[in-house]
Amino acid sequence: MGSGKELDNFLTINELARRRGFFWQSFEIYGGVGGFVTYGPLGTKLKLNIESKIRDIFVNKLGIFEIESSIIAPGKVFEASGHVNHFKEPMVECLSCNKRFRADHLINEKLGISLLEIEKMNLSEIKKIIKKSKLECPECKHNLKDPAQFLTMFKTTIGPYSGATGYGRPEAAQNIFVEFNRLHKMAREKLPFGVIQIGHALRNEISPRQGLIRLREFTIADLEFFFDPEEANCDIISEVENEILPILLADNRKEGKEKISKFTVREALDKKIVCSEWQIFFMVMAKKLLLEIGVPVENQRFIEKLPWEKAHYATQCFDQEVYVDRWGWIEVSGHAYRTDYDLKCHMNASGADFRVYKEFKKPTEKIQYLVKPKMGLIGPKFKEKASEIIEALSKTPAEEIFESFNKLGYFLVGDQKISESYVEISQQKNMVRGKRFIPHVVEPSFGCDRLFYVALEYALKLKNNRIILSFPKNIAPIQLGVFPLVNKDGLNEKAKTITNNLRNEGFLVEFDDTGSIGRRYARADEAGTSLCITIDYSTLEDETVTIRDRDLWKQVRVSLSTLPRLLDDYFKDRLKFEDFGTFINSK
Amino acid sequence: MGSGKELDNFLTINELARRRGFFWQSFEIYGGVGGFVTYGPLGTKLKLNIESKIRDIFVNKLGIFEIESSIIAPGKVFEASGHVNHFKEPMVECLSCNKRFRADHLINEKLGISLLEIEKMNLSEIKKIIKKSKLECPECKHNLKDPAQFLTMFKTTIGPYSGATGYGRPEAAQNIFVEFNRLHKMAREKLPFGVIQIGHALRNEISPRQGLIRLREFTIADLEFFFDPEEANCDIISEVENEILPILLADNRKEGKEKISKFTVREALDKKIVCSEWQIFFMVMAKKLLLEIGVPVENQRFIEKLPWEKAHYATQCFDQEVYVDRWGWIEVSGHAYRTDYDLKCHMNASGADFRVYKEFKKPTEKIQYLVKPKMGLIGPKFKEKASEIIEALSKTPAEEIFESFNKLGYFLVGDQKISESYVEISQQKNMVRGKRFIPHVVEPSFGCDRLFYVALEYALKLKNNRIILSFPKNIAPIQLGVFPLVNKDGLNEKAKTITNNLRNEGFLVEFDDTGSIGRRYARADEAGTSLCITIDYSTLEDETVTIRDRDLWKQVRVSLSTLPRLLDDYFKDRLKFEDFGTFINSK
Repeated sequence: MGSGKELDNFLTINELARRRGFFWQSFEIYGGVGGFVTYGPLGTKLKLNIESKIRDIFVNKLGIFEIESSIIAPGKVFEASGHVNHFKEPMVECLSCNKRFRADHLINEKLGISLLEIEKMNLSEIKKIIKKSKLECPECKHNLKDPAQFLTMFKTTIGPYSGATGYGRPEAAQNIFVEFNRLHKMAREKLPFGVIQIGHALRNEISPRQGLIRLREFTIADLEFFFDPEEANCDIISEVENEILPILLADNRKEGKEKISKFTVREALDKKIVCSEWQIFFMVMAKKLLLEIGVPVENQRFIEKLPWEKAHYATQCFDQEVYVDRWGWIEVSGHAYRTDYDLKCHMNASGADFRVYKEFKKPTEKIQYLVKPKMGLIGPKFKEKASEIIEALSKTPAEEIFESFNKLGYFLVGDQKISESYVEISQQKNMVRGKRFIPHVVEPSFGCDRLFYVALEYALKLKNNRIILSFPKNIAPIQLGVFPLVNKDGLNEKAKTITNNLRNEGFLVEFDDTGSIGRRYARADEAGTSLCITIDYSTLEDETVTIRDRDLWKQVRVSLSTLPRLLDDYFKDRLKFEDFGTFINSK
Repeated sequence: MGSGKELDNFLTINELARRRGFFWQSFEIYGGVGGFVTYGPLGTKLKLNIESKIRDIFVNKLGIFEIESSIIAPGKVFEASGHVNHFKEPMVECLSCNKRFRADHLINEKLGISLLEIEKMNLSEIKKIIKKSKLECPECKHNLKDPAQFLTMFKTTIGPYSGATGYGRPEAAQNIFVEFNRLHKMAREKLPFGVIQIGHALRNEISPRQGLIRLREFTIADLEFFFDPEEANCDIISEVENEILPILLADNRKEGKEKISKFTVREALDKKIVCSEWQIFFMVMAKKLLLEIGVPVENQRFIEKLPWEKAHYATQCFDQEVYVDRWGWIEVSGHAYRTDYDLKCHMNASGADFRVYKEFKKPTEKIQYLVKPKMGLIGPKFKEKASEIIEALSKTPAEEIFESFNKLGYFLVGDQKISESYVEISQQKNMVRGKRFIPHVVEPSFGCDRLFYVALEYALKLKNNRIILSFPKNIAPIQLGVFPLVNKDGLNEKAKTITNNLRNEGFLVEFDDTGSIGRRYARADEAGTSLCITIDYSTLEDETVTIRDRDLWKQVRVSLSTLPRLLDDYFKDRLKFEDFGTFINSK
């Protein structure tokens, strides 16, 4: 991060991103469309590497399932999940020019009321403020219509019938919830288990701004972790117990304080700052992920969400934030305790049974009462009403009849009072072996485009007035540059052979023979290439090459025969560049 | 592929896919929605591995750029590309029950007319056939309305204004074309270069069927390769010249023949069976890709498309097909020569200039005429009309005036005939150093879900009545199973340590301690796990484990210290299982 504040990192990154092909606004030839970006060749590699990091931590290491499902889903899914009712933003329209604006952003910008405060307001409160403050159209200065809620999902039709509404998913989570039963089977019907989906999602923002930070189409990584709320302990919590999390508590936020408190995982659990062991476990994983993509822990924090800030499904919720030059703290992941909200919604809407069966550690004895009508007495006494009474006594749960006897001295059928003498009461001891319940869910959810942005910002360095992207070596879009010193005398062919060999070993290699070596180093530094290998005349004689490190600007000379093993050890973090050999003269 | 025909591979695969979590129809709890699938944990890994293969061949090895852009695009993009006009299917609706059907499928099924023939027909011909044959609703047997064209793109609105139509992309190619200028810059303004995009695409099929084969949401890999049509040679064609391609020629297809001809690349080019060197180069890469995911070349063919089968943008087009048990030959990739069609469309619609500049090898001399009005003569002669005449003579290209003199003997301005005597004509020799032109494009386009399906079908084997998925080792969803022989005496802990170590080495490992070893092997075989490692009592004594091969059902005993290197060599194809060591007794 450039500390010299004359430079705005956002502008530097955007210029670099367009020039070198990290990302840019899509459809520029058609005037551009807000909220859509194209990742270019370098950007796509970087983004894939960040997504691989997520997979590595959660899928490969922790055994979380990964699924891939569709972006378009039938209306029922988002009606059940509550999105059709809740996934809205307040919008105002100009009476004259008909331009439309986010009401909350307008109030925030024109009146200085914090977004935190506006989020608490309902539509009529927003209307009142607009009237009272005589807010006008920011474009043509005319009056505004009353604010209305705008559904920020993309709507479409599935198939040839106009009634079959579909929506673009605003999150990847619902695809997981609706498939719960099948996924639970794949977990061999055991809890806990987790499922992640990494994919595109869509939010039809009214007026997207802030480049990569607020997009209409973006990549989300939603992880839903299902567990038994009565056995909510994380079995690997001890592995992270001493990790420290920087947390901005809700109480401090309410008072407008920005004070970050540091807690170990153990402290945060003991003090009930985070209620769920699994939730805090994933918060630690999120901290680790951000560290691995280059954001030091001092520039991370978790903020506890206030009641009115939380999504409609969440009880406790923390946002992981990273400090960036242009906007201060921005959210990169959300950590919500969704309870059984979503599974319950889909159960109610679909009729599917998402309850899982749990066997008790030992079966419990349960006493069951049995009420048997005395036919011989009821018949003669109640005559034509007898059958009705017998039916009622048989159908009503025994506990209820029993309770009525105890309270009232009789059980009422129609207008007939039936006393205890007309029935035979017996007890039965049953062994209950288990029960059915709906699992609870904690969800870490990552915005991959924001991870991408912070990875770029934290990689950004200036050295001798040149831009260097000091990516951690495992996310660098290009691992190796291979350069022939000159484009003659067989050096080019040798370099191409080496390039192909390294590619066959699985390395991401860029061959470059254009311009001076200095210019090629500069281009590679700007792309964030970890190491550059130069083939010179000595290579042809003794099969050695120089390797140059992007951050140290130092070089070593190594033998081609040891190169693949050396590089493999380097990229798998078993060997540092400093241990490759003795540094030689370098520019 | 099971050769016993009592078993339909499609059914076997679908049952296995649902049970083991490769894929299933999405939204089952809401009755399912045709054309959407969910890839489960094993399926997602397999699909990612297939996509990695595509990346490996094209991006990592050949240096093709990869980009990632949005699925939703503004209407203008698909108006310009021709999709809004052409991306339609004929549909009929029942007059009584209002059900809607694909007209071509209905005619094919009810009248036995081949889809090839129907594809030639326009809407009124389809209407005639329906009337003549008195085709009725297949559901309620009532009459059908006249057929109509149905736009098979998903339509939506971008942002808060109802006029801003957007579509879900039916292909990933247009995202590449619209960004041509920026991508060309990233290729340092040199041709040829290629750009691939792998991502979801949407086609709003009227009535999707055939499971993974025809989906409404699917994954496409579109590669657009840009080159100079005047320098169309592929510089690496010699590397593939002797590769043999099985081709079903258009001429044979027209006569209903299924005869596959085999040509070397050289022959196919010499005989002008394939016109573009780059196109055939990518066809060879496609053959290689299919081989690598397990489809032998005998079960692949390329069919030449007939004129009326080709997409609206293509001149020459081949489909790569693979033979599958249920449907015979199905398309897995398309190879279209799109010429400059798309770039031209977007140039015309947007006003952007997609022409690239080419410097001639040597500058050519071009004679330019200059026409200079003789003011001293024109003024007195034409008086108040003089200025109009002078302006016309100055603005009109000299060649045009010159031609008019030659043909008519004068040049007309309004009603005034201007003879050659009123102008001074001079010649100028110019050196022209280059020219601007629109690049041509060949496109290989892969349907990733179909690649997935054929990978499954070709991996499917039966042995002792058990299903085994014999995936090529580089696409197997799980590389390694790790099993403690029994769940006691520290074997479990040892196995977990080994699992973690192997995961840290980057292997995809599944730990399994449930059930007998035999059952665990069977489960692993069914998931296609390449190798299984068993930890037994000897492991605790001498740090050795057994490794079992999925296909051979043979075991070897190896030392833990050599394990990572051995496995790395195995998965990088440097070592065969047979060379791990001496086979030991195994079940």
